[in-house]
Amino acid sequence: MRSVGSHLIFELWGCDDSINSPEIVQQTLRELTEVAKARLLGLHLHPFSPQGVTGVAVISESHILIHTWPEIGYAAVDLFTCGEPVDPDAVVPVLKQRFNPTHVQVLQLFRGIAGD
Amino acid sequence: MRSVGSHLIFELWGCDDSINSPEIVQQTLRELTEVAKARLLGLHLHPFSPQGVTGVAVISESHILIHTWPEIGYAAVDLFTCGEPVDPDAVVPVLKQRFNPTHVQVLQLFRGIAGD
Repeated sequence: MRSVGSHLIFELWGCDDSINSPEIVQQTLRELTEVAKARLLGLHLHPFSPQGVTGVAVISESHILIHTWPEIGYAAVDLFTCGEPVDPDAVVPVLKQRFNPTHVQVLQLFRGIAGD
Repeated sequence: MRSVGSHLIFELWGCDDSINSPEIVQQTLRELTEVAKARLLGLHLHPFSPQGVTGVAVISESHILIHTWPEIGYAAVDLFTCGEPVDPDAVVPVLKQRFNPTHVQVLQLFRGIAGD
């Protein structure tokens, strides 16, 4: 099965206050870029008032995204990569270490599947 | 069913050369922001060499993303919104008008589903 990219979707619940920190979100994006062995092209942070952060790492033709809702301890993380798919088992430890979720769900989509 | 956000995923095939234009990708992001009735917080364009574009519109706590691969006529579009879900039927005409795909697939995920 040929596909253009792997799109990993993480749902994190029970996160601690770290998800309200733009600095920690930014650091997590950098670490995930390393895990994905990707080239970082741009890093954009948008803190919200009174709380919440959106962070986008644009990597070579793909992206890593973190949206956080500290008021409910929830964070949505997307990792869209080209080439060799990133192993979710390499990503989850980073997310657990940074955000301390009590529950993690993972979904993997393959984007751009070409039929022959 | 309560959820934090609606995540619409579009797979566009058979697109014309418009997907290689950062200006058209940017214009499309602006139009999709209007369709989503969202507030635009940041717009980031990353053209690639020799071809391809990544465009991110950060909107209120969510995002719209376009990645394009002109060499195979493929574009991946994501629309993650909070609040009232965006109707895919309102999005597809914009994508068709801008990128002229011959085939469109749509997937809708609900993110942050809270169990009671």
